[in-house]
Amino acid sequence: MITWLNHIAIAVPDLSEATARYELLGGKVSEPQARVEEGVTVAVVTFPNTKIELLHPLGEASPLIDYLEEHPRGGVHHLCFEVEDIDAASTLLRSVNCRILGNGGPKNGAHGKPVIFVDPNDFHGALVEFEQM
Amino acid sequence: MITWLNHIAIAVPDLSEATARYELLGGKVSEPQARVEEGVTVAVVTFPNTKIELLHPLGEASPLIDYLEEHPRGGVHHLCFEVEDIDAASTLLRSVNCRILGNGGPKNGAHGKPVIFVDPNDFHGALVEFEQM
Repeated sequence: MITWLNHIAIAVPDLSEATARYELLGGKVSEPQARVEEGVTVAVVTFPNTKIELLHPLGEASPLIDYLEEHPRGGVHHLCFEVEDIDAASTLLRSVNCRILGNGGPKNGAHGKPVIFVDPNDFHGALVEFEQM
Repeated sequence: MITWLNHIAIAVPDLSEATARYELLGGKVSEPQARVEEGVTVAVVTFPNTKIELLHPLGEASPLIDYLEEHPRGGVHHLCFEVEDIDAASTLLRSVNCRILGNGGPKNGAHGKPVIFVDPNDFHGALVEFEQM
């Protein structure tokens, strides 16, 4: 079902510092992009086999504000796996008692593809996104 | 400097459950391996572009015991990036005020290669391992 690790998302308190750090380490870093609907500003770091998405709060309703209050240094926010069929993935995940966040079904994700997020309580404490490619 | 994401390590309270989950999701899962020196039992999940290492405490002195007390559901324990030269990586990381855990220099890692771990306080709240390949 999982075909690829799409990205690791890391919440950071200082986006400029974080992008400079990953550039120094050899990553190819994008310009920061506003994802208004998600309430985040994102800089994408590309490595040969995967990507890091550096996330910073955007706007007063950003869900990352609470996250960074709890984790002021930042932290690994979520992992994103690619799948071929989001409905088949949802069915499989529900069959092993994984609750899907939100309305329980796929929504349109940041890359314009259907995604689901699984409750971290049901996935070894990690917030995991599945994205149909 | 970073050439590849080697693995994401996830601490899990129930290794059998976690390996079954990742097999169901299409990962190729190894037999659990005891890494006595590190105090962990590891099952390696292989996906086309990277690996997940599922970690479970081994022995009474395992550093994962404290981790799982703090994170009883489990959690993303660390990320491991491959580098070409561990000494050059150490110098570069120190130049941006990253403290290297342990004695401050490389040690022999789980895959038989030199590794360093950077203090999460200095790396956006994430424990990051660098491994010379």
